[in-house]
Amino acid sequence: VPRLRRLAGSTSVVRRRVLRIAAMPESEVDQIAAPVYSRFENPKTTILGAAGQVELHLVAQAAAEAEADARIEALAAALRAVLPGRIFSEDGRELPQVVVDLLRERGLTLALAESCTGGLLSARLTDVAGVSAVLERAFVTYSNRAKAEELGVEPGLVERVGAVSEEVAAAMAAGARAAAKTDVGVGITGIAGPDGGTSEKPVGLVYVALAGAVGDAVRRSLFPGNRERVRFQATQVALEMLRRGLLELPPP
Amino acid sequence: VPRLRRLAGSTSVVRRRVLRIAAMPESEVDQIAAPVYSRFENPKTTILGAAGQVELHLVAQAAAEAEADARIEALAAALRAVLPGRIFSEDGRELPQVVVDLLRERGLTLALAESCTGGLLSARLTDVAGVSAVLERAFVTYSNRAKAEELGVEPGLVERVGAVSEEVAAAMAAGARAAAKTDVGVGITGIAGPDGGTSEKPVGLVYVALAGAVGDAVRRSLFPGNRERVRFQATQVALEMLRRGLLELPPP
Repeated sequence: VPRLRRLAGSTSVVRRRVLRIAAMPESEVDQIAAPVYSRFENPKTTILGAAGQVELHLVAQAAAEAEADARIEALAAALRAVLPGRIFSEDGRELPQVVVDLLRERGLTLALAESCTGGLLSARLTDVAGVSAVLERAFVTYSNRAKAEELGVEPGLVERVGAVSEEVAAAMAAGARAAAKTDVGVGITGIAGPDGGTSEKPVGLVYVALAGAVGDAVRRSLFPGNRERVRFQATQVALEMLRRGLLELPPP
Repeated sequence: VPRLRRLAGSTSVVRRRVLRIAAMPESEVDQIAAPVYSRFENPKTTILGAAGQVELHLVAQAAAEAEADARIEALAAALRAVLPGRIFSEDGRELPQVVVDLLRERGLTLALAESCTGGLLSARLTDVAGVSAVLERAFVTYSNRAKAEELGVEPGLVERVGAVSEEVAAAMAAGARAAAKTDVGVGITGIAGPDGGTSEKPVGLVYVALAGAVGDAVRRSLFPGNRERVRFQATQVALEMLRRGLLELPPP
């Protein structure tokens, strides 16, 4: 009878929060987070991993709202401490929305140059309402001719180091920014598969570059999975690089 | 006992086929198809509708493969007759794959200029492996400056008729084709929402234009639904216009 009364009790409050982390393998997140969340009986934590994104679902129960909120916040704070700067959302927003919000707050404009992702980064960003204030234009430069004509990527550079290289990713980011006259440029080049891989440059190899107001940077990744997963993970890395770069700028 | 025997019978064969139709409302497809498929007890037909695509799922049962195949084919032929040229796939392929296959077979190259779809058409096409043989480049020209600089769309034209217009869609398609030197160009401009609509140009209004080897054409659509659905339906219309234009060209 006491058990039944507790389950049906009108004073029981449930609070949920989802902590999202991008561009970090589930195994790595769980290795860091499990020692923390397993110390807590309440909230209960479930870890959900997908390509390019990991979610920690926290569910707290208490007699009153304030206690449930406090329990959620205590665990969230402990997780923030072991994953500094890596939790991009606790309020339901997905990564493209977070990046668009940061760009808008800082009054910065963006241009994209995509090769292997073929417009997927642009499509994900433009699914956010109000993105037109920040995204000036995007180029999908599948061919080397398009990379040269639209972005000014030297054909000699492509011949020397290959279209899938740190140097070409950087030149694409800088070229998109220069063509569009924006504050920030992003360049992505890689091998999404299933064909086109070599032993030196296998399927899943992707370079993502930033140029401009968030600093110049290139990141090399080797993603597992099929074409769709490689492409999605590449956009997650680009968005996460943008997010972290934007957070380092002084807020408006 | 006879009923149990039939269900467990090892001679019973099941055959399925999915007929796909794009850019046509489910109610319209069903009005045309129901009088046909309801005449058939076997195969059984289920109609599934989503934004921009309708599927007819045919399931036939028979004692032998040949009979099940013949039953499926009889109904499929009857449906083809009442929906002439509108069924884009009976073999599991989705619309982007069908369009890429048609372009490859005919040896034609493609350039895209997207405004309201923001790269979604490019992203859907480049999800198809081997697309690099046909997609030369794509432009996401959110701003009017990008439309002018990348596609040669006259600022005076945009001022006169508005960025969301038949004329600007046509100029975007022609401009993408000219910039990329491809056989075919596609232009898309519209109002995906939730903001930006007026009584004259409401949310959901989209113009899709083709230029080049498949002929010049513009189609005006008014799509229901939210931003995501409007954008997806716009890409379906563009792909279906391409598919029908390509089918009218002499095969290779």
